Amino acid sequence: MSVNSPNQRFLFYILLIISLVKTVVGEFDRKYDIENSEKYSHLDVTTCKLDPKLIEEIKSYQGSADKILNEITKGSFKGKSFDDMADFVDEIGPRMSGSKALENGINYIKKLLQEMKLINIDEIPATVPKWIKGVEHAELLKPKQKKLHILALGTSVGTPKDGIQAEAIVVNSMEDLLENKGKAKGKIVIFNYNKKYYDEMSAIVRNAASNASSHGAVAALVRSVTRLSINSPHTKLQRYVPGVKPIPVAALSLDDIDYLAREYKRGKKLVIRLSIEIKANTKDAVSRTLIGDWKGKSKPDEIVIVSGHTDSWNVGQGAQDDGVGIFLALETTRLLQHLDLHPKRTLRNAFWTSEETSDQGITVYFNKYRNEIEKHNVVMEADDGCFKPMGFYFAKLPEVGCILNEIAKLVPITNSTEFVLAPAIPSDLDLFVQNSTVPAVDFIGNDGRYFWYHHTEGDTMTAIDTDDLDYCLVVYATTAYVLADMEPRLPR
Amino acid sequence: MSVNSPNQRFLFYILLIISLVKTVVGEFDRKYDIENSEKYSHLDVTTCKLDPKLIEEIKSYQGSADKILNEITKGSFKGKSFDDMADFVDEIGPRMSGSKALENGINYIKKLLQEMKLINIDEIPATVPKWIKGVEHAELLKPKQKKLHILALGTSVGTPKDGIQAEAIVVNSMEDLLENKGKAKGKIVIFNYNKKYYDEMSAIVRNAASNASSHGAVAALVRSVTRLSINSPHTKLQRYVPGVKPIPVAALSLDDIDYLAREYKRGKKLVIRLSIEIKANTKDAVSRTLIGDWKGKSKPDEIVIVSGHTDSWNVGQGAQDDGVGIFLALETTRLLQHLDLHPKRTLRNAFWTSEETSDQGITVYFNKYRNEIEKHNVVMEADDGCFKPMGFYFAKLPEVGCILNEIAKLVPITNSTEFVLAPAIPSDLDLFVQNSTVPAVDFIGNDGRYFWYHHTEGDTMTAIDTDDLDYCLVVYATTAYVLADMEPRLPR
Repeated sequence: MSVNSPNQRFLFYILLIISLVKTVVGEFDRKYDIENSEKYSHLDVTTCKLDPKLIEEIKSYQGSADKILNEITKGSFKGKSFDDMADFVDEIGPRMSGSKALENGINYIKKLLQEMKLINIDEIPATVPKWIKGVEHAELLKPKQKKLHILALGTSVGTPKDGIQAEAIVVNSMEDLLENKGKAKGKIVIFNYNKKYYDEMSAIVRNAASNASSHGAVAALVRSVTRLSINSPHTKLQRYVPGVKPIPVAALSLDDIDYLAREYKRGKKLVIRLSIEIKANTKDAVSRTLIGDWKGKSKPDEIVIVSGHTDSWNVGQGAQDDGVGIFLALETTRLLQHLDLHPKRTLRNAFWTSEETSDQGITVYFNKYRNEIEKHNVVMEADDGCFKPMGFYFAKLPEVGCILNEIAKLVPITNSTEFVLAPAIPSDLDLFVQNSTVPAVDFIGNDGRYFWYHHTEGDTMTAIDTDDLDYCLVVYATTAYVLADMEPRLPR
Repeated sequence: MSVNSPNQRFLFYILLIISLVKTVVGEFDRKYDIENSEKYSHLDVTTCKLDPKLIEEIKSYQGSADKILNEITKGSFKGKSFDDMADFVDEIGPRMSGSKALENGINYIKKLLQEMKLINIDEIPATVPKWIKGVEHAELLKPKQKKLHILALGTSVGTPKDGIQAEAIVVNSMEDLLENKGKAKGKIVIFNYNKKYYDEMSAIVRNAASNASSHGAVAALVRSVTRLSINSPHTKLQRYVPGVKPIPVAALSLDDIDYLAREYKRGKKLVIRLSIEIKANTKDAVSRTLIGDWKGKSKPDEIVIVSGHTDSWNVGQGAQDDGVGIFLALETTRLLQHLDLHPKRTLRNAFWTSEETSDQGITVYFNKYRNEIEKHNVVMEADDGCFKPMGFYFAKLPEVGCILNEIAKLVPITNSTEFVLAPAIPSDLDLFVQNSTVPAVDFIGNDGRYFWYHHTEGDTMTAIDTDDLDYCLVVYATTAYVLADMEPRLPR
């Protein structure tokens, strides 16, 4: 580009600023996202005071980082993560805890670990929830006939075979529910709470059925946890409070709940017919958490875990959640093998089962390897999708964030400028945070779009961009490699 | 905000730049949108050479423009457009050409025109298509059982009652179809063409059934015209080529067509069962285009049209398409009445019928008022939704765009910096462009999100933000008022 005239030069700088800003801040509004809720704090990297020797050591990985970048963006790994993940999710489909599909998926990945010649392949049995849904539908009968878009919440009981037909009331807050508790008896309660953060919405969804039931309601419907709908409902886990009668509960699309709330506010009587068929709702299904090791070159006893969870919800393909976690771990290992970047520490691939409906997948691992837990140098996961590589959650010590920041500097393409000190890591890894000194590092791939697709029919390969997935892998693989190979352990 | 230290000052300027850039360029990628396709050209306003007297006259409307802004953003019209539109779409629902709901909707608006004391209320009869769909579903049977997300395309014939079960082939381009035409016989042809612009995609969708049928196919499925899906299909009008056997045709969600294309590429045999029930498919339904006048103060014979189309697709609520057009016109008139900003020219509210499936709504108006057509000073419409006020399409003379640009300067909140010289206005108004010298001015409210919701179950009030709708009204009403009141006619 030639920039001769002052006008052209001005335009050039304006365009440069626009492109820089768009790269740094991302294109999408992220106010809803977990890492932006008030409990989390973004590391101010200007406060970092790392040992200059450590900084020098990390800088010395520039050559390896460049190899990783080139192989993924221009070499034999270009587009490979997308294709491999598509092969997996297209064959296996959604992988609900307790389903045959999940076990097929675990077998599929086990075969990949064997092909990668990983050692110590272990299938650790886990007893997990089994919640299998049949046909569901909801229909507004009054003030007009209209199909409603629902997804039953995880662990919901079913309705009687002929469904439930009842008048509905809409409540907009906990106070609203308490004020209207006399009105809830025999009704369907529609929870139209709309909170600022995902975490707050999750808590409301989790307890909606029990809150409604304790006031005598016959069913509950909740606002989907998202800010973008296109009339798609978003499912989630709910929990019945012991001692309260379990009633059926489902998520409504934003479009439908907004409409119902408007009609209710106008004073119209709402009558809804709800039908949810539940084929299994037990806690005793058998599954497995799967691991396999690439033995470290010189510190084989020290373990770096790269991981994802194998189960998904019963809609879409479980691509962003958590195909991304699985394949960032697998492709990292395959890429480092291919480039002969054999780290000093053991790179353990771990695939937790039943993350969506229990903590059993990681618990059985933690219990079985209890004596080796403190030998883990770091546990990594991705359970936040891949839209753009945005950064990492880490727990406890700011120094861990500072080291991640130094590693990020090795990757010139990265958007990874966010290092979020998390009181609780929003994935399986939190078990390590709460029960050990092992640092947990969780990849953030959510640029504001993750919850658009999360737990919906739209969590498919279509929600993933091939190039973006490559960029996520560059950041994830570089970080995993340096952490597995650099001389000192991560501080704890 | 106090900005004491140099660091704080630096941060302050960075944040300022970010917010300015976000305001100017919008948050969303607009590469797909009509006005960015190669046929359209963005007016370079630095080339404008308007008569300084005209510029001065437009500047003299600053006081009125401020009144409009204040009444909408802080006064009695704050949120009113949203509430009024919600009342309408919630009561009437989707308004397919030929349906009872559309006629109910036209009656509803007629009552509003009467309440507004408009004169010359005219219901101009139009003979329009009637295409009423019953139940539809599609299911993949091989390589695995899977529900497919479809919406039949407008004017599609139905399948036999038991549906069509057939092997499917996927074609990715016209060349691909020609190469595979021998394979199409007796099959379902899946058109997975993916073009750069909306216009190009529309042309493919329009002709897909006839193209497939001419090669012996039994049905066609097409890629939804959108870049964001969350597994929602997007419907559209299709046209059968005379002499070619009409076969059923539907749009698939991006998620489903991407999946089918991957399986087909892997060499898997696809078998699909498709069932579409069509209850009516005729061209002889009776509808009406509705008009009503607010008589001009001193130039009543000169007409400024503000308009939208009353019909919608058979999904969602027809909120963005085209509730926005209807209510920007209505609220503009009500606001100017309320503020006693009575323009010199007559402000004609016009509500075309059957825009989605024919050109009859505007044609019957044009024919009935043929002798007065050249007395129209300008015809305005909004048929591009309201996300943010982005600008206007205009036809023929660059001077019209220059005048719109001067008016936009009266509105400090505006994003309206885009004035797009259009070879064909992408709405009903194009009839005026092609058959008269009357300038057409079409509001652009699409910031890149319009086609996410367009013709889907998600075109509901949830896709509209109350404040954004107010901002669209500010720009639309200010423009309509100045055009209806300023001394000279728009150049032609």
